[in-house]
Amino acid sequence: MKEKTLSSLCTPALVVDVDKVKRNARRMIERCQNLGVQLRPHMKTHKTLYDNRCSDTHLNSGSRRCIAVSTLAEACFYADRGFDDIIYAYSLPLDKVERCADLSERLDLFQILLDHPHALDELKKRPLRDSRLWHVWLKLDCGNGRAGVLHSQPEALSLAQAIVGTKGVELTGVYAHCGNSYNCRGVEQIQAVAQETTDLTLQFMEKLKASGITCKSSIGSTPSCSHPVKDMGKLSEVHPGNYGFYDVQQSVIGSCTLEEVAVKVLTRVIGHCPHRNQLLIDCGWCGLSLDGAGKLPTGYAVIEGHPDLKLLSMSQEHGQVEPISGPLDYSKFPLGSLLTLIPYHSCATAAMHPVYHVHSEGRLLGKWTPTRGW
Amino acid sequence: MKEKTLSSLCTPALVVDVDKVKRNARRMIERCQNLGVQLRPHMKTHKTLYDNRCSDTHLNSGSRRCIAVSTLAEACFYADRGFDDIIYAYSLPLDKVERCADLSERLDLFQILLDHPHALDELKKRPLRDSRLWHVWLKLDCGNGRAGVLHSQPEALSLAQAIVGTKGVELTGVYAHCGNSYNCRGVEQIQAVAQETTDLTLQFMEKLKASGITCKSSIGSTPSCSHPVKDMGKLSEVHPGNYGFYDVQQSVIGSCTLEEVAVKVLTRVIGHCPHRNQLLIDCGWCGLSLDGAGKLPTGYAVIEGHPDLKLLSMSQEHGQVEPISGPLDYSKFPLGSLLTLIPYHSCATAAMHPVYHVHSEGRLLGKWTPTRGW
Repeated sequence: MKEKTLSSLCTPALVVDVDKVKRNARRMIERCQNLGVQLRPHMKTHKTLYDNRCSDTHLNSGSRRCIAVSTLAEACFYADRGFDDIIYAYSLPLDKVERCADLSERLDLFQILLDHPHALDELKKRPLRDSRLWHVWLKLDCGNGRAGVLHSQPEALSLAQAIVGTKGVELTGVYAHCGNSYNCRGVEQIQAVAQETTDLTLQFMEKLKASGITCKSSIGSTPSCSHPVKDMGKLSEVHPGNYGFYDVQQSVIGSCTLEEVAVKVLTRVIGHCPHRNQLLIDCGWCGLSLDGAGKLPTGYAVIEGHPDLKLLSMSQEHGQVEPISGPLDYSKFPLGSLLTLIPYHSCATAAMHPVYHVHSEGRLLGKWTPTRGW
Repeated sequence: MKEKTLSSLCTPALVVDVDKVKRNARRMIERCQNLGVQLRPHMKTHKTLYDNRCSDTHLNSGSRRCIAVSTLAEACFYADRGFDDIIYAYSLPLDKVERCADLSERLDLFQILLDHPHALDELKKRPLRDSRLWHVWLKLDCGNGRAGVLHSQPEALSLAQAIVGTKGVELTGVYAHCGNSYNCRGVEQIQAVAQETTDLTLQFMEKLKASGITCKSSIGSTPSCSHPVKDMGKLSEVHPGNYGFYDVQQSVIGSCTLEEVAVKVLTRVIGHCPHRNQLLIDCGWCGLSLDGAGKLPTGYAVIEGHPDLKLLSMSQEHGQVEPISGPLDYSKFPLGSLLTLIPYHSCATAAMHPVYHVHSEGRLLGKWTPTRGW
């Protein structure tokens, strides 16, 4: 059979460079080994099963254990494929207690996050079968400003104490997401956020210890784990997710170089519009997402090999490309020719694709199918 | 069995009010009947099969004929379910000629769009089996500024003549999308665009006639077809798509009222953040899309029944809601309580959901599963 190459794909198509994924994964594993901290990869970016060529490097070990997920759809997807030791890294929503109970009774180690006494009350109402324990991580907000109990508030300690004091529930750990690292530019700023989140988490662990409580600790974000500070070695775990794919956003933050981005969207030129000095491409927001609007001089993406082009606007299935300055040389972009978009945010771009095309040096190896929904 | 209501759904969930869809569809059918023009619904918004409760009203007749689609995935989805007379309403991409040939040989009437002589050359190279004809619509740009040959350029007429002069190819019609109606505010502006697109299309038909060519004509967009002008009755067809669902954008344009929007996203309050005067909800961009950024005083959506709230920002699975002014009254929004988001752009929101939950007056009737990809 003839070997299939990227140019045989109908576009738009999400393509994954498996060698880059492996390299990105290997580096993260090495960083964590050097720090002496457990890596718990977050699956929310790709939401799929890396095949055998990749899973042994992406995960910590050959075993299918120790992951974080953002939805119960992901949790079930991985549980159905033999994964265990899964953290549902989302403060327990009250409508999903029963589904979490099912997973807790089914898996060896299904773990949840909690940031409010109401959620603890719901756990009390739903004891697990066979004297199993609810494995609960306290979600701590160390300055990220999204979910979690604020580290500085007395409610954080009292909630931890309430968890410890509840029958059938175990305080497994303290979990903080340093999403504020996404505002950083450069390693110095990233490491300042990593240091601050680590310090605040470790200070909270000390408070717990002072009241007789010991448990694990975990922080994470791809920027902070791409440039970790030494003190992160004092934590039990880290949980970055985007680093397997990376994206333009991570390169702007300083987590990676643009060359390390492993996921691209192939698109084709489908129209010449000399009266507007534009090209039309067959990738709209359905193939890229609208994430990154207004963030880059090159528009919604970086067009590989064409730093002079801007992806100006998109509708559902069309993109409009124009030069950043000067007239467009149409002879360089014949109808049907391929362009490669490096996405601003790979989590958002991957979410638009029902299938990812995996390649090594341009040779297609197969397809990965992600899960969707909640 | 106990009747299931909306509040039984895990969130975020896309819910479709089937009665509103029926009503929106019936009105569009009536408008077209009054005009004397054939309605060809565009399926790109919902990409699914309305079940029997709805299909007879959404389509023109009980028969599964006469639709437009934006991708070949949609074309195949409908063809596999017994639909025929399908327009692939996307200027023929050169990488998809063979797949279009397959559909042309398989269906009674598969039709394509064309706006460049190169694409015609590709059709010449791929004659259809059994002396079948390629059914081609010339894609005309009447001021929309996306795909199509500019109506004012001599290339438009010469391409039509080249299509007519090519063996194995039939010029079936002239197709124009008045997407520029999306810049309108109010009926008067909408009708001005509808009139202009109609006039330009009919003038082009006259030019064709003068050179001995007769064929069909079709224009469309949900705004123009929601407030059609009389002259649209002189066209053969119209092809709106969004009108079954509608959305906030269409209400802002003036195509519909906010009450007519048939698709919503249910979400729940998952966090109280008094230190930021915010609520957290369990709908991020994964459940709503980022379409509409900066367009509404209420942020990324309208929160039904709460015109004083703003969906300020979203990450993958979280939304941050704050009052437009003043302090938030948290007693009105207990943890776990439901909020209903009316999406800015239903095409973009529907694209994020692997399943739509269909209800009548809040009673769940079933699920619709859309197709995805290309």
